[in-house]
Amino acid sequence: THLVNVCVSHRLSQLRQIPYFTGQSTSCCPFTFFKPANDEDSSRSMRDFLDEMRAENIREHLRKFTRLPHLAGTKQNLRLAEEIKEEWLEYGLDSVEMVPYDVLLSYPNTTQPNYISIVDHLGNQVFNTSLAEPVPEGYENISDIVPPYNAFSAQGQPVGDLVYVNYGRTEDFSQLEREMKINVTGKIVIVRYGKIFRGNKVKNAAFHGASGVVMFSDPADYCATGVQPYPDGWNLPGGGAQRGNVLNLNGAGDPLTPGYPAKEYTFRYRLEEGVGLPKIPVHPIGYHDAIHLLKNMGGPIPPNNWKGALNVSYRIGPETLHLSHFLSSFPCFRQCMCAPPLLPDRYVILGGHRDAWVFGGIDPVSGAAVVHEIVRSTGRLLRRGWRPRRTIVFASWDAEEFGLLGSTEWAEENAKVLQDRAVVYINADSAIEGMYTLRVDCTPSLHTLVYKVTKQVSSPEVGEEGMSLYESWHKRDNWTDDRDAPRISKLGSGSDFEAYFIRLGIAAGRARYTKDKKTERYSSYPVYHSVYETFEVVDRFYDPSFQRLRAVAQVRGGLIFQLADSQLLPLDASQYADSLTKYAHSIAQLGQKHQDALITYGVSFDSLFSAVENFTTAASSFHERLKTLDRTDPLQVRMANDQLMYLERAFVDPLGLPGRPFYRHVIFAPSIHNKYAGESFPGIYDALFDIEHAANPRRAWEEVRRQISIATFTVHAAAMTLTPPA
Amino acid sequence: THLVNVCVSHRLSQLRQIPYFTGQSTSCCPFTFFKPANDEDSSRSMRDFLDEMRAENIREHLRKFTRLPHLAGTKQNLRLAEEIKEEWLEYGLDSVEMVPYDVLLSYPNTTQPNYISIVDHLGNQVFNTSLAEPVPEGYENISDIVPPYNAFSAQGQPVGDLVYVNYGRTEDFSQLEREMKINVTGKIVIVRYGKIFRGNKVKNAAFHGASGVVMFSDPADYCATGVQPYPDGWNLPGGGAQRGNVLNLNGAGDPLTPGYPAKEYTFRYRLEEGVGLPKIPVHPIGYHDAIHLLKNMGGPIPPNNWKGALNVSYRIGPETLHLSHFLSSFPCFRQCMCAPPLLPDRYVILGGHRDAWVFGGIDPVSGAAVVHEIVRSTGRLLRRGWRPRRTIVFASWDAEEFGLLGSTEWAEENAKVLQDRAVVYINADSAIEGMYTLRVDCTPSLHTLVYKVTKQVSSPEVGEEGMSLYESWHKRDNWTDDRDAPRISKLGSGSDFEAYFIRLGIAAGRARYTKDKKTERYSSYPVYHSVYETFEVVDRFYDPSFQRLRAVAQVRGGLIFQLADSQLLPLDASQYADSLTKYAHSIAQLGQKHQDALITYGVSFDSLFSAVENFTTAASSFHERLKTLDRTDPLQVRMANDQLMYLERAFVDPLGLPGRPFYRHVIFAPSIHNKYAGESFPGIYDALFDIEHAANPRRAWEEVRRQISIATFTVHAAAMTLTPPA
Repeated sequence: THLVNVCVSHRLSQLRQIPYFTGQSTSCCPFTFFKPANDEDSSRSMRDFLDEMRAENIREHLRKFTRLPHLAGTKQNLRLAEEIKEEWLEYGLDSVEMVPYDVLLSYPNTTQPNYISIVDHLGNQVFNTSLAEPVPEGYENISDIVPPYNAFSAQGQPVGDLVYVNYGRTEDFSQLEREMKINVTGKIVIVRYGKIFRGNKVKNAAFHGASGVVMFSDPADYCATGVQPYPDGWNLPGGGAQRGNVLNLNGAGDPLTPGYPAKEYTFRYRLEEGVGLPKIPVHPIGYHDAIHLLKNMGGPIPPNNWKGALNVSYRIGPETLHLSHFLSSFPCFRQCMCAPPLLPDRYVILGGHRDAWVFGGIDPVSGAAVVHEIVRSTGRLLRRGWRPRRTIVFASWDAEEFGLLGSTEWAEENAKVLQDRAVVYINADSAIEGMYTLRVDCTPSLHTLVYKVTKQVSSPEVGEEGMSLYESWHKRDNWTDDRDAPRISKLGSGSDFEAYFIRLGIAAGRARYTKDKKTERYSSYPVYHSVYETFEVVDRFYDPSFQRLRAVAQVRGGLIFQLADSQLLPLDASQYADSLTKYAHSIAQLGQKHQDALITYGVSFDSLFSAVENFTTAASSFHERLKTLDRTDPLQVRMANDQLMYLERAFVDPLGLPGRPFYRHVIFAPSIHNKYAGESFPGIYDALFDIEHAANPRRAWEEVRRQISIATFTVHAAAMTLTPPA
Repeated sequence: THLVNVCVSHRLSQLRQIPYFTGQSTSCCPFTFFKPANDEDSSRSMRDFLDEMRAENIREHLRKFTRLPHLAGTKQNLRLAEEIKEEWLEYGLDSVEMVPYDVLLSYPNTTQPNYISIVDHLGNQVFNTSLAEPVPEGYENISDIVPPYNAFSAQGQPVGDLVYVNYGRTEDFSQLEREMKINVTGKIVIVRYGKIFRGNKVKNAAFHGASGVVMFSDPADYCATGVQPYPDGWNLPGGGAQRGNVLNLNGAGDPLTPGYPAKEYTFRYRLEEGVGLPKIPVHPIGYHDAIHLLKNMGGPIPPNNWKGALNVSYRIGPETLHLSHFLSSFPCFRQCMCAPPLLPDRYVILGGHRDAWVFGGIDPVSGAAVVHEIVRSTGRLLRRGWRPRRTIVFASWDAEEFGLLGSTEWAEENAKVLQDRAVVYINADSAIEGMYTLRVDCTPSLHTLVYKVTKQVSSPEVGEEGMSLYESWHKRDNWTDDRDAPRISKLGSGSDFEAYFIRLGIAAGRARYTKDKKTERYSSYPVYHSVYETFEVVDRFYDPSFQRLRAVAQVRGGLIFQLADSQLLPLDASQYADSLTKYAHSIAQLGQKHQDALITYGVSFDSLFSAVENFTTAASSFHERLKTLDRTDPLQVRMANDQLMYLERAFVDPLGLPGRPFYRHVIFAPSIHNKYAGESFPGIYDALFDIEHAANPRRAWEEVRRQISIATFTVHAAAMTLTPPA
């Protein structure tokens, strides 16, 4: 027999401070107000603002920000923060603030590297997986490249058979247990990356009693056909592996301070009480190593056809883990100028993370470079005397890779103010994951604005000169099943908008350039979270002209501009109504699969449909009334805008979803089964999930009724916010 | 031996609709606005508004509304609602709306009346307590007088010894168990009314394993010396008994629909899952009956000296209980006029309940009559062309006596809109409970306004002509321990402001005329919740001239007027700072009692003091900036007012207090040990409570640290809302 030795060795740095910062394009002088331009001036400024953004600048920013690794909590990343802060101030922002949080991070133990080994019956390690990825050319002298690991893995050396469970999805484990009658209890599970968030894979494995998890990148998922591995192409080399955290935070932010900002005064749970920390060890490997392991499970397996389950006996060797605590501190400051916007207490936020696993060529620096150029362009307008009508907040988050920590802690610290004042949150993670067309995920009320803005941006594609981004996008990814427009999807999670949208109910959206999902099946992009995410992978393959990144900058920037500067907020309640109608039909259809049970247990979706109808009427009356609004009366405009701003807030239920107190949006939540995917009416969806196997069907259907009732109430309540206020 | 037979027989009417309604002094026409008068005109209108209120009108309203019983859920109470609605419309309100909720109510079974009996060893009932109170003169022909009962009592006939546990407080049970070594498990507990909310007595009894509870009114608590029993005086007759619910809802509203309005589409928990329903039978008796029971426990006991515990053996006879369900429906309508206020989306709410246990001479009609006169006076101003700057909402709640149901359901249904728009909630329950002076409980930010308004109202006392209510109040109940001003207390609960203040974080207050608490030791007032709460008890004894009720009308009305009509909201953040400082010192002092533990477990209040200091600075800077505010700019005024309005909201934690999800105010909550009393920093207070007896001191002190951390965060966050918005 052979043994597999999963050596997972991590440092959890319990009180690690992460610097995040936000920059505002406004000042801290109260009660002195800039009189804004009229709508015509504003649209001229919008044109200037978009035109000012340059492809070559974005290339420069990307180049500069990817020279060194900048893992969250490291000195390099702090230095990068300081550099960006300096430049934002130079560009013309009024103030840039840096605030530290003390959060739980997780690093591998460099003196005892992690690996998986096959051990023979005498205890000899006959095969060990690689300790690191081969470093790409040009980066040989860079130190501090963190080897592939799964952050927040438990420490330990599990003993057990190795069982292959495909993608490790809920359905993969069900199939294994129900159809193949294979039990994974006490065994080590090997799963391939992709399809769902890796944290869900680990949760599933632990739920089914597995003692450890090995994750690998299957070429079927991480190599495009006809493309060479990096550096000759943009495919993942066989020695590359995907880093990434394996938390199940469900929106809690720092695992030790759920619900509250991780400040020095904050109470911290003990490590063993921390939210979402896996109880079993997890380690990622590349496909060269994976082939070797899997071969040993029962002969050679073609990389593109690793299906079904294999089952062999393995045992585990001894290793130990260390915890280290350290604390550092960063200065806070604020700078002041004297032309605040007309509405300083309305915030339009553009935020994205700065921390990367290694160089972050795509994730996140393609996005951070875009934000940098947007800030530069904003600064140019500011210098020419323009002031936005509302406060614009730019944020560079830290520790996104460790569970959206920076953005969540800031949302927690500022929750009260954001609840009162935040108009919108636009996310700015990786700006490119493919070479095909635009991809937008956003709240329904932003659809109309997204279409409007993309019509003002040019297509970046060669051969599409004179065509708008909207037309190009429409042609490439049409929403034929729904309406004749480019496809826009629901927000899931896995990036920094989560706390803003799903916990606080702030309208949110994200935009990036993407692949052709009809033909390209890999998740994210092949070199995702590997050392091969360099400047060169973008510069040589993804966007040599940097026109695609420029287009993304113009979309993200254009959204922010319009939301910050329009007299009437460009939010569309009727689009929300359309989406609610669609979601209600879709969830009811799911219910209809159980016709008999619906009758037996008296479950009906009628009240939900009636609430959605009611919402639809309220939305269209609202927009009808807007047409006759006296726009010269600032109070009337403010009241109407408040209704638009607070619409998203109305979908938040302070009681949260069952067992997920920080997922409070009743219409949208990350799927329980895949954090990356957004589920509509998640409470009902989860209650219906696998209901045919419910232990107590009466209870299970009661929960469905309860969730329908909550959704009905919430939609009614949201409709009330759109009716005339008195 | 003698037996006590506790026969508790109730109807729970599961789907009982309660009509509540709200009347608004504004219209439903959107976007057409009345230009408000300037501050000088406004203060002239305030004078007219106060002067318009007449003592003789209040007498008339009280007379008219107390002719018949109007228990929640009955036809009489619906008819009363319709009558009030008609009159509010006649007075000049723009619209009056009636909305039904289907809530759980609880009535005694009239065919099997409840009583307690002493049974001899042969099973003969040798003594039975009264089935009803002797009806007062003039009311002999009134039907539908509900006999004394404790609403939501469990059904059943408990068997067990009868044990006297004083007031049934936490400390009474502790004393019994720890000092007197008496265990109440399986026994029937007899407690006297007073000191704490009766639901807490029942919770304590059930927690200690009692099988049933008998409650009685002790003359020591419900008779003033030198005063005759009603009708010759205002003392409780020996045959009178206190009705009242024995729920422990902790703010949930309808027990079957916690968190959501009880509409026809709403999911309802099963009865056995209902929130706060006691699991043991409870029945109230008067002191004539109580003397008989207690005498049989060990010889005659002087009524004023019922202390300690007595212990005899008793057994229980058989009875059964019924549930009945019925449903009715009420029309909704809305009427429209065309001069809405400048700020229709800012709500100033005056609400009080209409339902009474019997005639409700004091509770609630003394309050409802006052509201009626305030509405009449408002109508007069409206007819003369005055419009308030903000929307005024008048509410007549139903089913307050059954757990604050009407007000809580309305708050639940309108939660989103109220969160965005409610400026203040002023409560209007009983307007008089004594003949001595004013009593005000309110949020700290209202203190300054309360003093201002009471200076504009005349003292109603004979011999104090020319003296202001403020001066009279100051003289009679000075706050000598704190500052030289009339005493103002914290809000507890037990009335309809609860959901608004403690769940939603809306600034709230209440005002009534009260007794001299230095000399009058009884809880509430002697005839509280008995059939003797008639028109006559007010007309003959409490306020023959109706000047006291008029003064209360002017205070409640004056608060509403100022909050609705002032350009800058008359809310004082610095008063909040002062109160926070006081509360922090007081909770730290409580902690200091455990010096050693504070050191051992590393517990410090420093962070809380630092947050309070921070808040104090923010508040005083805020008010400083207000002085230079450009009041001609409506947007600047709106922004400052929004900060004032949302200040109270900032103290709400969506996660709620431990185990009490609907008590979300971090600064104030009803005491766990007495719903009537307000506790400051309740999370810390509860964590410290009885900590010297904690099973796991380390855990217990960790919870103290956690609660200090939450309080610190919340105060910091509230301070942030007062800083300049950008």
